Amino acid sequence: MPGDDDVFLQAAIEEAEKGRDEGGIPIGSVIVHKGKIIGRGHNRRVQHGSAIHHGEMNALENAGRQPASVYKESVLYTTLSPCSMCSGTILLYKIPKVVIGENRTYLGEESLLQSRGVEVVVANNDRCYELMQEFIAKNPTLWAEDTGEVEVKA
Amino acid sequence: MPGDDDVFLQAAIEEAEKGRDEGGIPIGSVIVHKGKIIGRGHNRRVQHGSAIHHGEMNALENAGRQPASVYKESVLYTTLSPCSMCSGTILLYKIPKVVIGENRTYLGEESLLQSRGVEVVVANNDRCYELMQEFIAKNPTLWAEDTGEVEVKA
Ligand SMILES: [Ca+2]
Ligand SMILES: [Ca+2]
Ligand SMILES: [Zn+2]
Ligand SMILES: [Zn+2]
Repeated sequence: MPGDDDVFLQAAIEEAEKGRDEGGIPIGSVIVHKGKIIGRGHNRRVQHGSAIHHGEMNALENAGRQPASVYKESVLYTTLSPCSMCSGTILLYKIPKVVIGENRTYLGEESLLQSRGVEVVVANNDRCYELMQEFIAKNPTLWAEDTGEVEVKA
Repeated sequence: MPGDDDVFLQAAIEEAEKGRDEGGIPIGSVIVHKGKIIGRGHNRRVQHGSAIHHGEMNALENAGRQPASVYKESVLYTTLSPCSMCSGTILLYKIPKVVIGENRTYLGEESLLQSRGVEVVVANNDRCYELMQEFIAKNPTLWAEDTGEVEVKA
């Protein structure tokens, strides 16, 4: 039987697939409070020309304004290791636990998170990795833009 | 004669004042590339019910998608010391310099930024401090919400 982490990571993967189907970067995220998804989202860089709507940020924004206590009891699920921006946001809201689909494609700020007391679980999920590899093979510059590493047209 | 930093900090202060006039948290920011403002913004937590549109994030979003090289040659001006989220974003986009209006009201992740090689200038600007103090006196819980520290209604 799948555990909670599998079920919610699966929801994040569904978000990533939605993003891919929209022509976007296939990274998805959900925020779970006491066993219930309170926000879901996916990367909107391509779809909305956004510099800040990574999957995790989009899920947080979609969760709306929440009391501080809710964030402190929540788990953030993301299909890919969180970058500096998303990790900083996890720290701001004191989200205590992050479940990461994979970190082979991109290793974010896991060490920073751990050094601040955040529990970091890496699922090594094959589907998360596959989605990113397929995307990068087709769109190498778009992906590089998301990690702040390459010249792209605005 | 005022230097460049004073002129652009002044533009960030004008954004903070716009936010205040909208009933929002008076924190403003501008992003400057080669002497030209490419994005300006202010905190929209109250106005848009946003969990992610701090002043700096809003300025970045308003700048739109930029080539990586533009961020790497830009300076971010903000009226208040940047929190974990905004600092993480500065690191993601490799913005090399941040000019901060004040850090007495709130001390953000200046040490983290410096440890990663970002130049941090604190202007100790009285107007920035005054705007925050006036706001906090009138709206103590709203401000605490922005720093992830207090119970508030969604
Ligand atoms: Ca596996
Ligand atoms: Ca002064
Ligand atoms: Zn991110
Ligand atoms: Zn911030």
